[in-house]
Amino acid sequence: MKRLEKIYEGKSKNIHTTEDPDLLIQYFKDDASAFNGIKKGEIVDKGIVNNHVSAAIFKFLEGKGIKTHMVKELNDREMLVKKLDIILVEVVLRNVVAGSLAKRMGRPEGETLKNPILEFYYKNDDLGDPMINEYHIREFGLATDDEIEMLCEKGLKINQLLWDYFKERKIRLVDFKLEFGRHKGEILLGDEISPDGCRLWHWDTNEKMDKDRFRFDLGQVKEKYEEVYHMICG
Amino acid sequence: MKRLEKIYEGKSKNIHTTEDPDLLIQYFKDDASAFNGIKKGEIVDKGIVNNHVSAAIFKFLEGKGIKTHMVKELNDREMLVKKLDIILVEVVLRNVVAGSLAKRMGRPEGETLKNPILEFYYKNDDLGDPMINEYHIREFGLATDDEIEMLCEKGLKINQLLWDYFKERKIRLVDFKLEFGRHKGEILLGDEISPDGCRLWHWDTNEKMDKDRFRFDLGQVKEKYEEVYHMICG
Repeated sequence: MKRLEKIYEGKSKNIHTTEDPDLLIQYFKDDASAFNGIKKGEIVDKGIVNNHVSAAIFKFLEGKGIKTHMVKELNDREMLVKKLDIILVEVVLRNVVAGSLAKRMGRPEGETLKNPILEFYYKNDDLGDPMINEYHIREFGLATDDEIEMLCEKGLKINQLLWDYFKERKIRLVDFKLEFGRHKGEILLGDEISPDGCRLWHWDTNEKMDKDRFRFDLGQVKEKYEEVYHMICG
Repeated sequence: MKRLEKIYEGKSKNIHTTEDPDLLIQYFKDDASAFNGIKKGEIVDKGIVNNHVSAAIFKFLEGKGIKTHMVKELNDREMLVKKLDIILVEVVLRNVVAGSLAKRMGRPEGETLKNPILEFYYKNDDLGDPMINEYHIREFGLATDDEIEMLCEKGLKINQLLWDYFKERKIRLVDFKLEFGRHKGEILLGDEISPDGCRLWHWDTNEKMDKDRFRFDLGQVKEKYEEVYHMICG
């Protein structure tokens, strides 16, 4: 399967059509951005790490009954995926206080939550991806009631599965973002699951191994992404 | 009943103890503030309007089975209320797009909603009263599951009642904020319901008759508050 027309140029991935109208190719770039595009840069080989890590996680989740958009990895930077009608609601799951949750609630980063926190964000770059709730989702037609229920259910289930998955690999899954989409009457997990959209801390040292290294100029960005790759993919 | 010790100095009200340990006096001031205290000023006789308008609305709601903290109006600026253990969650109800909803969702101000929107905010000046959801409320112990359910139920019911109440008085209830508190095992509606915490537009002209006149220097602040007073209290 080969890339045809580029139909979307994203901040870290491009999307291309293929010969099959139901299938697309996600091409993972090394481009990095943060703070809604205000900070831009490049992390060498990030695209390769994110493609492989996402593929390993999607494969694991499929084995646990979570349907994803992945068909297969084509090569280091390309993933063949089912075409989704993207739900414009980002689902964020949190196990440890960090990032915007620390700021929002005035809590210290690193505080372990008693129960996972689930948050919805409106996927809209122009608006800076604002936090929303079920009332906004329904009123502005972003998802149906059934879909909202499914987003919560799948989000919490995936969090449970991935918490254990990462823990076995000596990584603390602090928080992460999920995107879903509709495909032939089903809701599939889409996008990617990688150090770009997850906060991943080393289980023993709490060292950050994710995009916060880029966001806050912590150094060793490429090295830590590659460490995650080795901890996940062996 | 007389004011004793001032136990709280708020942005628009002070709270005093009374001889009865279960009862407090809310003293309504003319002080006005906006944008989380960045803008400050005074609206002459605002305290009188807000006290009388709140009292009229509390009385109406009590008649409809909504329990409030009001015992009675003592005079132009004082309301005798039951002492509450305040729930640190502000409940916002919206019928028309305005204010932060317009900004959050990128929708034009004035768009009528198909259904009311309910939002929760963490009552915390230092944090700028951030929007939160049920997961934050539970995790950080702001309210129990039962209380969250009651906040939603009461909030939506009050919105329905007040929409009709204001409509009969030629006012469009665009949005408003509610606060609740615990008193002897019950959840009571607290605080005030006035042009300070409600967006009120004239039904025929959509003219703003609320604190937005102060926020955005629209002029005739005192006059419009008094117009609301006359439309509500006759």
